[in-house]
Amino acid sequence: MSEPRLRVSYILTLPIGDDPEARARAIALEQTVELPAGAFPDAVGESVVGRVEAVEVSSRQHAQRVRAAISYGPEVIGSDLLQLVNVVFGNVSLQSGIRVAAIDWMPQTPPWLDGPRFGIEGLRELCREPERPLVATALKPVGLAPAELARLCGEFARAGIDIIKDDHGLVQQATAPLADRLALCQEAVAEANAATGGASLYFPNLTVEVPSLEERLAWALDAGCRGCMVSPLLSGLDTVRRIAQTDPGLAILAHPALSGAYFGTEHGVAPEVLLGQLFRWAGADGVIYPNVGGRFAFRQADCDAINFQLRSEVAGLRSAFPVPAGGLDVQSLGEWVDRYGSDTIFLIGGDLYRRADLGTAARQLMDSVRRHWVARRH
Amino acid sequence: MSEPRLRVSYILTLPIGDDPEARARAIALEQTVELPAGAFPDAVGESVVGRVEAVEVSSRQHAQRVRAAISYGPEVIGSDLLQLVNVVFGNVSLQSGIRVAAIDWMPQTPPWLDGPRFGIEGLRELCREPERPLVATALKPVGLAPAELARLCGEFARAGIDIIKDDHGLVQQATAPLADRLALCQEAVAEANAATGGASLYFPNLTVEVPSLEERLAWALDAGCRGCMVSPLLSGLDTVRRIAQTDPGLAILAHPALSGAYFGTEHGVAPEVLLGQLFRWAGADGVIYPNVGGRFAFRQADCDAINFQLRSEVAGLRSAFPVPAGGLDVQSLGEWVDRYGSDTIFLIGGDLYRRADLGTAARQLMDSVRRHWVARRH
Repeated sequence: MSEPRLRVSYILTLPIGDDPEARARAIALEQTVELPAGAFPDAVGESVVGRVEAVEVSSRQHAQRVRAAISYGPEVIGSDLLQLVNVVFGNVSLQSGIRVAAIDWMPQTPPWLDGPRFGIEGLRELCREPERPLVATALKPVGLAPAELARLCGEFARAGIDIIKDDHGLVQQATAPLADRLALCQEAVAEANAATGGASLYFPNLTVEVPSLEERLAWALDAGCRGCMVSPLLSGLDTVRRIAQTDPGLAILAHPALSGAYFGTEHGVAPEVLLGQLFRWAGADGVIYPNVGGRFAFRQADCDAINFQLRSEVAGLRSAFPVPAGGLDVQSLGEWVDRYGSDTIFLIGGDLYRRADLGTAARQLMDSVRRHWVARRH
Repeated sequence: MSEPRLRVSYILTLPIGDDPEARARAIALEQTVELPAGAFPDAVGESVVGRVEAVEVSSRQHAQRVRAAISYGPEVIGSDLLQLVNVVFGNVSLQSGIRVAAIDWMPQTPPWLDGPRFGIEGLRELCREPERPLVATALKPVGLAPAELARLCGEFARAGIDIIKDDHGLVQQATAPLADRLALCQEAVAEANAATGGASLYFPNLTVEVPSLEERLAWALDAGCRGCMVSPLLSGLDTVRRIAQTDPGLAILAHPALSGAYFGTEHGVAPEVLLGQLFRWAGADGVIYPNVGGRFAFRQADCDAINFQLRSEVAGLRSAFPVPAGGLDVQSLGEWVDRYGSDTIFLIGGDLYRRADLGTAARQLMDSVRRHWVARRH
């Protein structure tokens, strides 16, 4: 059996006069040999140049809307995640009217793409919560000292919040250096767990500069953390893969910082491709995204498509948790539980911090999720 | 003197009814504490929350066009390049109608931001070419074996091309593994230099997965390479900084792969901010961008603004070469030399590969640049 090829479906927005087939062929060249036809040996052309699999014109009004499927082979992608991203959108990002609408492997995911190490099942085991939706919150704001952040951690853990993650803007600031913060927060959560019999997890933010990654992974593992958070588009997508491969393993929540730059309607990458597929392929066990109706610009269809891609059954790849966030409140959470179902981590931050008594607010949140979930099952 | 603050000018596109001041304050909160006003201690607010420095409404037609300047302090940025990018556009990338139009330090660049290690002057010394515009070409396509790529290297070097760089799609494919390719190409260039007395440079592509970076840097340094190429948005921007800090130093050409996703007209980041400032701050000695009129979507104003930012005098930061590319041809190069001036590296690939005799085409290119430059000076 030949090695898998990656099929990319581009939606092209072209002037009425342009030839869609020619445009598709130009993309297939640009993303592989970066040379016009005729300027490279035939043998290279056959094995390396992207294959135009299909070109369909779906509308012709002010402009042509065209769906072009192009496949790329192992000769050009190798087993390199960054090169995969490059082949999908590297150079053509600099052109216009090109949107990556879908990507998939023909016939199946290649073995070098490991994907999530824990996945939905593994992360549920870490949380000791086999069924109900999980709840996460963010530790914030930047500016608090490690002891203050650890106190918040303790309150959240005593309330039974499943995952307490650093805000993605908490890095290595002077007010709360990572080594101190990480040790104190992890200790506070462990103490709370010991008192309650719970299994709350603390995930430090490991979005860090390259030379520090190994060192900081070691800090997190030595402190006993079971997971971490990372912003793949800040650190480089491959950082996720690196962390997923580190023994004995840290579960990874991926943060969508910067990703909104990619989501143009006529040019860019569809949210479900970037957050739902590429982040999962890189190894994220859960992917945070801005839920519809909050302070960000996602539509319901975007959220549903991301959920679908993260959870879909793919041979050789564990599924990952969708983590809707960005303006969820305790009040309306039940509706979202009904809509998104149990294999979801609901990330609620601001609505807790607004309350005078954070611990009480967190307990009420967990009670309401548990009650809602039990009621739904009966 | 207090530590420098980073001032970011956002162009906001808002519905007519919206309050521009309130929108600016919301961004200042979103990019720092990620909490609404009132949900964090006052002391944190004063030191951490972004400061709205100015809000100006420039037009009110179908929508309001607003320029909002917000500054962020060292308490939130720390000395972390990734966090800097996050503060500039991380979360608000997920909103809409927000474009980063300019960034600058008040009152000066902070000492932790080293910028280019070689810069224009240092790279000229490596090329032993104190004055004229430099010329680069790309080694391609993917699919050729190391020996074939090395043969091309030799031809380019004998023709006197200043910098011969791997195509950015040449990574670690089975057809030309980096270790072999790098050794043979560097050797071919060294042999050609020995024969001609020239100083051509070979720059391998080090856009690589995180765990391999150290190893591959060592390969390049051991082989005697004096520079490399990297795609910062694939590998993570900080990879550039990492390479710039590696002794004894590799000059860095940064490739713009993926960057086009950021350049929306109403939402995103201005090309001169991303390629002209952030890439230089990270440590690129030269930045490749798609010149106007080629097969990419840049306007002349984008190119001019990138050139300006890369070369501008900034205390504590070396200047970097603009590297226009993407469809330059030998025929029209003189015009571009006149327009862009000598502190430019002209990257010409496709137009050489189109010719039957690559070596002759490369020699003609170098002759024409030298002749044009001499004529211009007299």
